[in-house]
Amino acid sequence: MGSHNESVTDFTTFNHAWMRSIKGFLLDITGVLYNSSGNGGSAITGSVDAVNRLYAESQVRFVSNESTSTRAKLAEKLQRLGFTLDLQHIFTPAPVAASYVKSHHLKPHLLVHKGILPEFDGCNDSEPKDCVVVGDAEEEFTYANMNTAFRVLMNSTNPLLISLGCGRFYQRVDGPTLDVGGYAMALKYATNAEHVVVGKPNKEYFMHAIEDMNLTKDQVVMIGDDIISDVSAAQEHGIRGVQVRTGKWRPEWETHPDVKPDLIADNLNTALNIILGHR
Amino acid sequence: MGSHNESVTDFTTFNHAWMRSIKGFLLDITGVLYNSSGNGGSAITGSVDAVNRLYAESQVRFVSNESTSTRAKLAEKLQRLGFTLDLQHIFTPAPVAASYVKSHHLKPHLLVHKGILPEFDGCNDSEPKDCVVVGDAEEEFTYANMNTAFRVLMNSTNPLLISLGCGRFYQRVDGPTLDVGGYAMALKYATNAEHVVVGKPNKEYFMHAIEDMNLTKDQVVMIGDDIISDVSAAQEHGIRGVQVRTGKWRPEWETHPDVKPDLIADNLNTALNIILGHR
Repeated sequence: MGSHNESVTDFTTFNHAWMRSIKGFLLDITGVLYNSSGNGGSAITGSVDAVNRLYAESQVRFVSNESTSTRAKLAEKLQRLGFTLDLQHIFTPAPVAASYVKSHHLKPHLLVHKGILPEFDGCNDSEPKDCVVVGDAEEEFTYANMNTAFRVLMNSTNPLLISLGCGRFYQRVDGPTLDVGGYAMALKYATNAEHVVVGKPNKEYFMHAIEDMNLTKDQVVMIGDDIISDVSAAQEHGIRGVQVRTGKWRPEWETHPDVKPDLIADNLNTALNIILGHR
Repeated sequence: MGSHNESVTDFTTFNHAWMRSIKGFLLDITGVLYNSSGNGGSAITGSVDAVNRLYAESQVRFVSNESTSTRAKLAEKLQRLGFTLDLQHIFTPAPVAASYVKSHHLKPHLLVHKGILPEFDGCNDSEPKDCVVVGDAEEEFTYANMNTAFRVLMNSTNPLLISLGCGRFYQRVDGPTLDVGGYAMALKYATNAEHVVVGKPNKEYFMHAIEDMNLTKDQVVMIGDDIISDVSAAQEHGIRGVQVRTGKWRPEWETHPDVKPDLIADNLNTALNIILGHR
């Protein structure tokens, strides 16, 4: 644990000037606000108070790659876990992907969790399909369903694969669990399909949330549990990235060869105490 | 169809000198000898006679990435389909992977088809597992089984993933079907595991079969239906590679940007007529 404390000390002692200009917060949801599980999950200690504090003292948007429930259901779930937040402040990939599909006049085959099917209401569902949308389909990632998606791509002249984020894994109460990214990579490897990621780490996705607060990217910080999708992705677009030691966080990331977070904190609440304390 | 005939003409007219030195044949099995399906599959027209001719006039080894049945069961299946061949001439990845696992004192978690479990008899099956062997597990590629394999890798200090070949897809009677490669890529993407491919396209795998005929690589030709695993892989190791238009063959491969087969023929029998006709 010594090295963890050391990390925090390094960051807070030597590099906190940026914290003074922070006017808005981008928060990942799963692994930062709560840990998921089959029966709803549980809030991470201190996160409910942290969100209340952000609404009182700053601005906040929730930037998630969640693709197992609609935005509305996700808001309900968070409210059940004790969070007070505005549905309009939650950003998930499915509604963005549905807009993309409609504006490009595509006929998507959906390999997604049943829970987000309503987000695709109004998409063209006639045959033949000309693209595949893949989300974290969980139990729907069967051998048969993967083959069906594969064949849609194989039958397309210009195969297009749209994934709702491209996460490697996430933390469930019962352990780390494969996310959509691996399944997207499987389909891409087998078909050489063009691959469009809707969600983190795409710049447009972050910018949409930042502009919704009427802020610029140097005025916000992204706080997440994923060193790649959250921290590195934000930093690559010029946004400060904070790693919390909750959710899928792993000790070896603290010496990651390529990614150095702007702050590492034990959890969301601690991160806020440090950042808001420097304003 | 005009362009197909043209391709054959090009190759046979302008570049057949190499055929005179061929003393041995490496044949892929699935898609060259037979097409697979749930109920055993069917021999490809002319292939039974072609194998008989090779045994009478040349030498032959069967170099397969088959990972759904043991070598013995595969030989039985081929015999049922009418083929006359020697079990010892069939090369499949599972026995090679089992030797690798044993010689490296590994404790493998097996995500493989039930049909090849006997090949791993004698491997250390105690806990904790320290590597994953993934083959074409077919219906065993469930969400739960993928997560179990993923967690074995996540719990390893130096995660090692051994795949039985790394095929993109293969042709079943009911259509093209995802092969082991995509699933291996999914696990690799999610874990950054070291990835060892046992089978084609690995050079050692080809060389083992060539040396078994007491030949050198310039004296043999690989005939397969996969432009990458068979044709390109052989050519990269200095072995002639022939594409047949059976199995998973696709028309667009005839103008593949990177791979130019040494011959393209409608099927195995036609390929032999051309090659043996030039000796």
